[in-house]
Amino acid sequence: MYAVIMAGGRGARFWPRSREKKPKHLLDIVGTRTMIQETVDRIKPLIAPKNILIVTGKKHARELIRQLPEVFAKNIIIEPEGKNTAACIGLAALHIQKITGDDIMIVLPSDHAIGYPDKYRAVISAAAQTAAQNNALVTIGIKPTSPHTGFGYVEQGELSGQVSGEEVFRVLSIREKPDFPQAQTFVQSGKFYWNSGMFIWKTSAILMEIARWLPDLNKGLIKIEKALGSDKEAATIRGVYKRLSSISIDYGVMEKANNTFMLKGDFGWSDVGSWDAVYEISAKDDNGNAVTTGSSVIFEDTENSLVYSPQKLVAMVGVKDLIVVETKNALLICKKGASQDIKKVVETLEAKKIKKYL
Amino acid sequence: MYAVIMAGGRGARFWPRSREKKPKHLLDIVGTRTMIQETVDRIKPLIAPKNILIVTGKKHARELIRQLPEVFAKNIIIEPEGKNTAACIGLAALHIQKITGDDIMIVLPSDHAIGYPDKYRAVISAAAQTAAQNNALVTIGIKPTSPHTGFGYVEQGELSGQVSGEEVFRVLSIREKPDFPQAQTFVQSGKFYWNSGMFIWKTSAILMEIARWLPDLNKGLIKIEKALGSDKEAATIRGVYKRLSSISIDYGVMEKANNTFMLKGDFGWSDVGSWDAVYEISAKDDNGNAVTTGSSVIFEDTENSLVYSPQKLVAMVGVKDLIVVETKNALLICKKGASQDIKKVVETLEAKKIKKYL
Repeated sequence: MYAVIMAGGRGARFWPRSREKKPKHLLDIVGTRTMIQETVDRIKPLIAPKNILIVTGKKHARELIRQLPEVFAKNIIIEPEGKNTAACIGLAALHIQKITGDDIMIVLPSDHAIGYPDKYRAVISAAAQTAAQNNALVTIGIKPTSPHTGFGYVEQGELSGQVSGEEVFRVLSIREKPDFPQAQTFVQSGKFYWNSGMFIWKTSAILMEIARWLPDLNKGLIKIEKALGSDKEAATIRGVYKRLSSISIDYGVMEKANNTFMLKGDFGWSDVGSWDAVYEISAKDDNGNAVTTGSSVIFEDTENSLVYSPQKLVAMVGVKDLIVVETKNALLICKKGASQDIKKVVETLEAKKIKKYL
Repeated sequence: MYAVIMAGGRGARFWPRSREKKPKHLLDIVGTRTMIQETVDRIKPLIAPKNILIVTGKKHARELIRQLPEVFAKNIIIEPEGKNTAACIGLAALHIQKITGDDIMIVLPSDHAIGYPDKYRAVISAAAQTAAQNNALVTIGIKPTSPHTGFGYVEQGELSGQVSGEEVFRVLSIREKPDFPQAQTFVQSGKFYWNSGMFIWKTSAILMEIARWLPDLNKGLIKIEKALGSDKEAATIRGVYKRLSSISIDYGVMEKANNTFMLKGDFGWSDVGSWDAVYEISAKDDNGNAVTTGSSVIFEDTENSLVYSPQKLVAMVGVKDLIVVETKNALLICKKGASQDIKKVVETLEAKKIKKYL
């Protein structure tokens, strides 16, 4: 069994902590380990490091290797450019097939938080059995807590059975990110789950589905497969990637495939998609204030705020619902609930080409 | 004619900029020069540096001399401890009398802002003539813009005449800091002015009034007068100050004295008593945001805020009515209107004995 951790992603929403050189998964946004370290720590009891593959970009590979000394350097798969998850997953599947023939492949995002890792491993394990037994595509659905429009949704079908104590459901449909009224309908129905971005399948199964629904990607992967391990490998991948469309596995394959199952991911999942999400999953004092480890803060008549300040003492007086993030050369002060607008700050910096803050 | 600039004061309200070693008057809170530099700059066209005396404490004397190279070192009068304005003014009067016999003495706070210095000098000049002609105590009243409870109030009496084009009024009464309903009554009457803390009188006149209303201080000053210039000077002042009560000239003398006049200080005065006051007198952009010189800030959907950040880029997203002050080791985020509570932060630091932030 193999794990494939997808470590692309820019994470502009975590500015000023996330920078071009340090995207979200390389930061200790939650806890003291970085997101990708926590991802590896979490799956390790189930899958030995020699079977953990990480797909990333050139820019971040060195820092990633530094952070993960237990991961085999040969298991770091470098994409020449990001072309979304379908290409990433196809490339990783080829690598696994080259190592071992056909095997179970567990696709994991590199920057999510999980509250209950034991339960998480039990669900992943049951999902792997489901994928093997049914030669199916398996996804993990998260019970929605709000009509979030930033996620895709999985429509739960009939109960297919139990595997190691976990219920396994048929999937009726997978839906792209909805608009708000549609998301509300989804959530009210009680039959829709957030698509967590974790997928479990055999390499042969996903490569077959890619061949069926994404013929261009399939052609590219065939070229890469032939070059894999040869001295033409890097150049071939570069050439193929240049011509690939950017397409997600959800949209490109999952929405169309038929033999799809879902297990419920009831293990304290958060995609930690913003500073607001960090506040939500943080421990808070009686006034609802959350302070990250190592920060020193004095609160005076202050409520429901999040502070990350490893360097300076922060004093907050008479404020509420603020997110404060201090880094070496920049400081963010953001209204809670407005953290999606942080990307506008990054866009402003990009437009002004002020590299030192990017 | 002599100017006496009172440079005591702690300025905890300007934390984290004001510190034990750098009280407000030694900081460039408004503009690029420090408050005391601006005070000296402002009075210099009227009074030559050799006639400018500054009363301060031991802790701040060196920095003060560094900031004011044009002021004569012998004109820096050091109090062994702060005993409020009555003692400060008495001591300064003795120094002037020793230099020159009797003369006009213009008492000025060291940390106020003046929008129109020409008009200011015209008023001070007329006040000096008034004090000389009438052997009177003269104060400068500021037309109140709100029922502020942090100021004393001067009750305007009948018009006594004009001096150099400035109206001179009798003072009916001087009132201590009122409670809010009383301050409202004062302001509504149209007859009450804020006491600016600027006083103009002959040294003989103020020493006579001190003798009359503050006999203990008078005894102490007589002792000091005898020792002035001798090798016992420092020890005598120390001994006298130790036993003095802390009392303001307003409460100790002005409220009781009879021969008191007022000129209107219509010259863009602000005592700059808090970060809120700094915001009020700062230039603002179309969204009401004020950024101090040298700060770099990105505002995204942000209104009516003040930012001082000489070091880090500050990005503010979706907030309003905030005061943000960054210093080397501390950061303040304060709701506009709550800046009086900053002293609670300083008290917390004092209680915890965290010297590095004090």
